[in-house]
Amino acid sequence: MQNPSQFGDLYLSYLKENPFKKAPEGLYLPADYIMELGGKRFRPQLALWGTYLRDGDVNRALPIAHSVEVFHNFTLVHDDIMDDANLRRGMKTVHEKFGTNSAILSGDVMMIKAYEYLQKGNNSHLGQLLKIFNRVAIEVCEGQQMDMDFESRSDVTISEYLRMIELKTSALLGGALLLGSVNEVGEIEGSECLDTFGRWMGVAFQIQDDYLDTFGDPEKFGKKVGGDIIQNKKTILYLKAMELAGDTEKQELESWFEKNPEDPTEKVEAVSNLFTNLGVKEEILNLQDDYIKRARACLENLDVDESKRNELSQWALAMVDRNV
Amino acid sequence: MQNPSQFGDLYLSYLKENPFKKAPEGLYLPADYIMELGGKRFRPQLALWGTYLRDGDVNRALPIAHSVEVFHNFTLVHDDIMDDANLRRGMKTVHEKFGTNSAILSGDVMMIKAYEYLQKGNNSHLGQLLKIFNRVAIEVCEGQQMDMDFESRSDVTISEYLRMIELKTSALLGGALLLGSVNEVGEIEGSECLDTFGRWMGVAFQIQDDYLDTFGDPEKFGKKVGGDIIQNKKTILYLKAMELAGDTEKQELESWFEKNPEDPTEKVEAVSNLFTNLGVKEEILNLQDDYIKRARACLENLDVDESKRNELSQWALAMVDRNV
Repeated sequence: MQNPSQFGDLYLSYLKENPFKKAPEGLYLPADYIMELGGKRFRPQLALWGTYLRDGDVNRALPIAHSVEVFHNFTLVHDDIMDDANLRRGMKTVHEKFGTNSAILSGDVMMIKAYEYLQKGNNSHLGQLLKIFNRVAIEVCEGQQMDMDFESRSDVTISEYLRMIELKTSALLGGALLLGSVNEVGEIEGSECLDTFGRWMGVAFQIQDDYLDTFGDPEKFGKKVGGDIIQNKKTILYLKAMELAGDTEKQELESWFEKNPEDPTEKVEAVSNLFTNLGVKEEILNLQDDYIKRARACLENLDVDESKRNELSQWALAMVDRNV
Repeated sequence: MQNPSQFGDLYLSYLKENPFKKAPEGLYLPADYIMELGGKRFRPQLALWGTYLRDGDVNRALPIAHSVEVFHNFTLVHDDIMDDANLRRGMKTVHEKFGTNSAILSGDVMMIKAYEYLQKGNNSHLGQLLKIFNRVAIEVCEGQQMDMDFESRSDVTISEYLRMIELKTSALLGGALLLGSVNEVGEIEGSECLDTFGRWMGVAFQIQDDYLDTFGDPEKFGKKVGGDIIQNKKTILYLKAMELAGDTEKQELESWFEKNPEDPTEKVEAVSNLFTNLGVKEEILNLQDDYIKRARACLENLDVDESKRNELSQWALAMVDRNV
């Protein structure tokens, strides 16, 4: 099955065939729960893409794909504790359902399991695979730390914010693609552009996420529009608005972001309008466009079949452009 | 430096030369804090022992030794959250000092760092090293889960308890020794007995830990004697006592373990006396002796220089016998 349109299903079959162990239940039940909550499964698909680009059998990349997805879900479990989040994909978060201690320990074992699946990769390239995985995993933690640090800071710059989402979200997207490629070719050299491609596409994706949260079509957008505004999240929209705002608008924005009204309708509308009037929409879409261009330019340097490169590019664009 | 008496210092120098990164501080400061809290550093020394037995240069085992010690300290950070512990080695626990979120995330990054140091092991044996490390890491998590499960159970058997400490504590001791050996010889086959030796010695060590908590010499014992009784911990002493007790003594014990008196002096004395009168001391020391014998018998099968085997055996006995 070497057809990219089937990568999602191919991974889902593998996932289904590889549940966690049964006992001790307290350890593994929460892990299966989060893995089955769904999600877009971009990361495992990217690992398959990495192998596909190298003309390898994508079935060989399935353990790597799973490793990356298990790691991603481990980060969700622990992040949800840190963010005190109750819901994930419309369902109870792991710590809400199973308790914080279970969420900590199940998250831990998931991380180890991620390494266990990584170890099922090409044995002769294990050193490189492990090196990439470790680097990316550390980046993800550093990104999460930056995100937490930002909460208590009022002077976060746009470039700091972009660096944070690059580490917290995008590094693993780029890493997945790179791992799938290196599992075939053994060397990182010559595949770095895949890491960069995934990374910049990931930033574009995250910008889109922030954008849709405020400007998405409520009918198509899965979550409630305006959630970030209600929670006073300093997203890229807010940071850009603060950059573009004059003194009066700055004060107005800051004052809204200190309020937590019971009915947030007026707040969401006022802040959205402020964003629109300041020209945030256009600026953000331009910024996103820059990242997409940078990503595609990287891919030009990859020495693989051009049609496959284009296929990946189209697929990644669709990933970014969802729901608009 | 191939003299086992210097393994401790050799590792401490390596530890000192390998602090975590500086930034983000919120992520790495708690990690350095726990690593510097001290401890007996048995695990890293065992990794050096594994290499020493194979006539390898123990300096080569230092990254492996560090990997194991970093992993061990990560488990302490997360376990202390789960156990709601305030003190560790007489100092504030990580979550008490830096907050729970920091303790979760710093623990996570420590686990990744453990894999990063493992990756610095012998590159041609990386597959085997990773396999051992993953297996042991999962055992440690399963042991911690069992320990948590036991808290809400009143029917824990002695053999379940022994299995729990084998996983939670001893697996990593055996694993450290095995990793040091496999880093030299490449194959697990022929070194399994090191894993078993470390494991049974570890159980003997843990039994000693429970024993000293109640029967240790207050002058030599680092912690307050009777702490486990005060906290109603169902240690091996308690479980053995319940096994040996008649109905009256059972009720007496259970009733003490439901009380939390402000001044615990009477409780500690009464429970200690119950243990003594039931013959728990002797039974426990016999049990410990069995584990030591099993451990030493395993070592007989190891195909290495006999004098080195005996050296290890003596060193491990000293580790178990501390403070008696």
